[in-house]
Amino acid sequence: MKRTPELVEEETLDPVDWASLKELGHRMMDDMFDYLQSSRQRPAWKKPTKFALNSMQHPLPQFPQDAAEVYEHFFTQILPYNTENGHPRFWSWVQGGGTPIGMLADMLASGMNTNVSIGDHMPMYVEKQVIEWSKEMMGFPQQAGGILVSGASLANITALVVARNHFNKSIRKKGLQTVNAQMMMYGSAETHNCVIKGVEVIGIGSDNFRKIPVDDQYRIRIDLLKQMICEDREAGHLPFCIVGNAGTVNTGSIDPLEALAAIAKEEQMWFHIDGAFGAIPKILPEFEDRLKGIELADSLSFDFHKWLYVNYEVACVLIRDTNIHREAFATAVNYLVPHERGLSGGPDPFSNYGMELSRGFKALKVWMSIKEHGIQRYQYMIRKNLRQAQYLAGLIQTEPSLELLAEVPLNIICYRFNPGGLEEEELNIINKEILMRLQEQGIAAPSYTLLNGKYAIRAAITNHRSRMDDFDILVEETLRIGKELMT
Amino acid sequence: MKRTPELVEEETLDPVDWASLKELGHRMMDDMFDYLQSSRQRPAWKKPTKFALNSMQHPLPQFPQDAAEVYEHFFTQILPYNTENGHPRFWSWVQGGGTPIGMLADMLASGMNTNVSIGDHMPMYVEKQVIEWSKEMMGFPQQAGGILVSGASLANITALVVARNHFNKSIRKKGLQTVNAQMMMYGSAETHNCVIKGVEVIGIGSDNFRKIPVDDQYRIRIDLLKQMICEDREAGHLPFCIVGNAGTVNTGSIDPLEALAAIAKEEQMWFHIDGAFGAIPKILPEFEDRLKGIELADSLSFDFHKWLYVNYEVACVLIRDTNIHREAFATAVNYLVPHERGLSGGPDPFSNYGMELSRGFKALKVWMSIKEHGIQRYQYMIRKNLRQAQYLAGLIQTEPSLELLAEVPLNIICYRFNPGGLEEEELNIINKEILMRLQEQGIAAPSYTLLNGKYAIRAAITNHRSRMDDFDILVEETLRIGKELMT
Ligand SMILES: Cc1ncc(COP(=O)(O)O)c(C=O)c1O
Ligand SMILES: Cc1ncc(COP(=O)(O)O)c(C=O)c1O
Repeated sequence: MKRTPELVEEETLDPVDWASLKELGHRMMDDMFDYLQSSRQRPAWKKPTKFALNSMQHPLPQFPQDAAEVYEHFFTQILPYNTENGHPRFWSWVQGGGTPIGMLADMLASGMNTNVSIGDHMPMYVEKQVIEWSKEMMGFPQQAGGILVSGASLANITALVVARNHFNKSIRKKGLQTVNAQMMMYGSAETHNCVIKGVEVIGIGSDNFRKIPVDDQYRIRIDLLKQMICEDREAGHLPFCIVGNAGTVNTGSIDPLEALAAIAKEEQMWFHIDGAFGAIPKILPEFEDRLKGIELADSLSFDFHKWLYVNYEVACVLIRDTNIHREAFATAVNYLVPHERGLSGGPDPFSNYGMELSRGFKALKVWMSIKEHGIQRYQYMIRKNLRQAQYLAGLIQTEPSLELLAEVPLNIICYRFNPGGLEEEELNIINKEILMRLQEQGIAAPSYTLLNGKYAIRAAITNHRSRMDDFDILVEETLRIGKELMT
Repeated sequence: MKRTPELVEEETLDPVDWASLKELGHRMMDDMFDYLQSSRQRPAWKKPTKFALNSMQHPLPQFPQDAAEVYEHFFTQILPYNTENGHPRFWSWVQGGGTPIGMLADMLASGMNTNVSIGDHMPMYVEKQVIEWSKEMMGFPQQAGGILVSGASLANITALVVARNHFNKSIRKKGLQTVNAQMMMYGSAETHNCVIKGVEVIGIGSDNFRKIPVDDQYRIRIDLLKQMICEDREAGHLPFCIVGNAGTVNTGSIDPLEALAAIAKEEQMWFHIDGAFGAIPKILPEFEDRLKGIELADSLSFDFHKWLYVNYEVACVLIRDTNIHREAFATAVNYLVPHERGLSGGPDPFSNYGMELSRGFKALKVWMSIKEHGIQRYQYMIRKNLRQAQYLAGLIQTEPSLELLAEVPLNIICYRFNPGGLEEEELNIINKEILMRLQEQGIAAPSYTLLNGKYAIRAAITNHRSRMDDFDILVEETLRIGKELMT
């Protein structure tokens, strides 16, 4: 065979000088450990400077730049203006704080560069192990399956596709227009927007998601749900799916899951649970009663990156019957046919269970975290957050000029500064101002919502670094800023 | 205010002994650098052992385990059985090989633990910078926008949702059942399965994706496309979207993109391009002609983790008109309202442009990689891969017992061992056996497809570590195994 040595080229994207990149890597590692260790010393938020912003307005770089310089740019202009969800007083939206072991696992996963989609290699089996553990945590049966995705949003969409395709077997190929009546979905008015987005993505249309009113604890009104399903059937519609909330985004409320499961069964509807963060206390024996019903769902979404504190991004969707799951997504194409032996052997490709083909090795950080901490330490942390929520609620209730705006069934606290004598509109303006100042002054980063038109400062405690006195600070500083604003 | 010091608890998921975890982190860094540096010394594939597999069959761990032990498990049972797409002779499916700088960037991103969804923090701006660079690379106009996603699969689905919602403004709320005729999509028979999956996910149904036959170079037959659209209109259907391929998965063929753009314009249809890997040579001036039309698309998907060699997972979808993009996904909900100041200020949330709410900081590895390498080095690598593809094709054509099964317009080579005198069925069996042995013996990892019923050994060269002599080895060893099988 003819060789053409003149064509051999050695240049790659690997460094020419490995030693110096490795040294830089070690420096990065040291810096990140310092960063993680010093989170409490930093402000809870810091506005990006104009200089930093301008440094992200450059044209496409044409020529190589030294890795150390690129890192310098990162270290001085990006890292200092992070979202800081690792800070002990970060309670915005619902964000977990990550861990050092998670960071290390992500480095390993990225170095391996695995595409966990297809093939006979260990990362496939690691994800399968994580799915088995997830089933165990959530009380799902043996025949259940699941897949890791980026977040509860994609988890919910994945489950809704399965529910829709299962309801009418011709939808996959013929489309929704083949269904001769309107398919309808149901959930409480507190259902997270990502579910509604999912209803739109899969073509059902958000108007066909019935937002059932909630009771005074923000739980779905079972009576109204039943009535709506009944009316819809009478109108000739096709009720096919109920979405239950295990922990609503606004207040952490838990819908009566067992009752929902029973209705779904009776009505032969799919029962999905969005348990983004609120499904997690399922690992606490004392939540047995309150989260009963999770194990009855046809599908369940929950995040690892929220209340299991795993680094962004990773969530899980479980489907009660893995065959139904597979039927929604599996296809046989020439370039993905499993072989008896070799690299193309191995387990059923994950692409048969979801929307993605290429997928990173998200499973590794979950696997390593669960092994390092053990469920025991997770139980401890979740209990701690639950106690902290009650503690904060208690502080608020004992302060005459603070008002607790909702009950606290889990880890979310909605409150406002209310010294008395102010109109609702004024209260809303003041409390928004308080929130912005809490953040601007770097004190704490709760977020906000509106509850019955009332602006609420909202702390979602999925933070393993918070201490009790962090909540003292939140209360003190809310009062201080509130009083400042009153003078 | 009453303090309750007895409730203060200090335990977190951070290590009690920071120094020893940090030391472990440095060990991991060293090991991963060794791993990356030694890829050429390893087999291109190695079957996971029974022992390794069994180690992934454990019940949910209850108790904490030392991080060093967890790492030991990883190091001995996971890492050695990686998919090895970083190996110089890995050419399976279409997988990039990753880089050391990508690994380091992923460590930084994970340590920061940013949720790049909403808020005034630098990672939001880094992603915006990467989108701007993507527009520049692909010749997209100023008013275009985009978002990073996990892969071309989600990129395609995202674009299809936009196309569908734009076609009929009532679909988001009312659903597809409100449309009074069948919406139809078009693309070649070589269109990647993930697009078909997307058509199913969004509720159109895969039967309503018209798979237009291809010419002898696997490009869509424009005449048949026109005819089909015309017939569908006559039948009362609603043609709304054409999908062009810039690089088909089987053979790397490029559809006549300008012609497709013209038809879409004339027919007032959306024009989407799946350029998962094949859009990348757009950064080469010499591809000006061959990829003309990319800049005309209404939407475009491409992967960073394939032919830009960025570590898994990251891809981009660009939408020509950012307002149309936003209209497909944006919502206003109480818990995500932008504020004038503080953490909830900042750019328009990314959740208004896609299916995800929580999103990791994938942008960092792209930003760092593009800065470190500069477009110049990417051009060099892509040209190298293109030359290697021609080199391999040349070797095959000069070997009498090898057969090139398709032209090589880009970086994909389909061939088979064909010593003459064998039936098609026998050839298929032999070539599959050759492929499995190439992998089992750790020599090389091409993959496979079927072309007109012929089993093809298929090498997709998106590998910055391959050298010319790696292809010599592939050819020699194919011949060796083929001859072995003939005796
Ligand atoms: C109840 C609930 N569901 C779903 C989501 C969306 O999850 P993710 O951001 O992981 O996509 C959230 C996020 O806060 C949530 O609180
Ligand atoms: C042409 C084409 N489109 C789409 C995809 C799917 O891309 P991803 O695996 O990044 O989702 C591929 C993957 O090989 C591809 O080759």
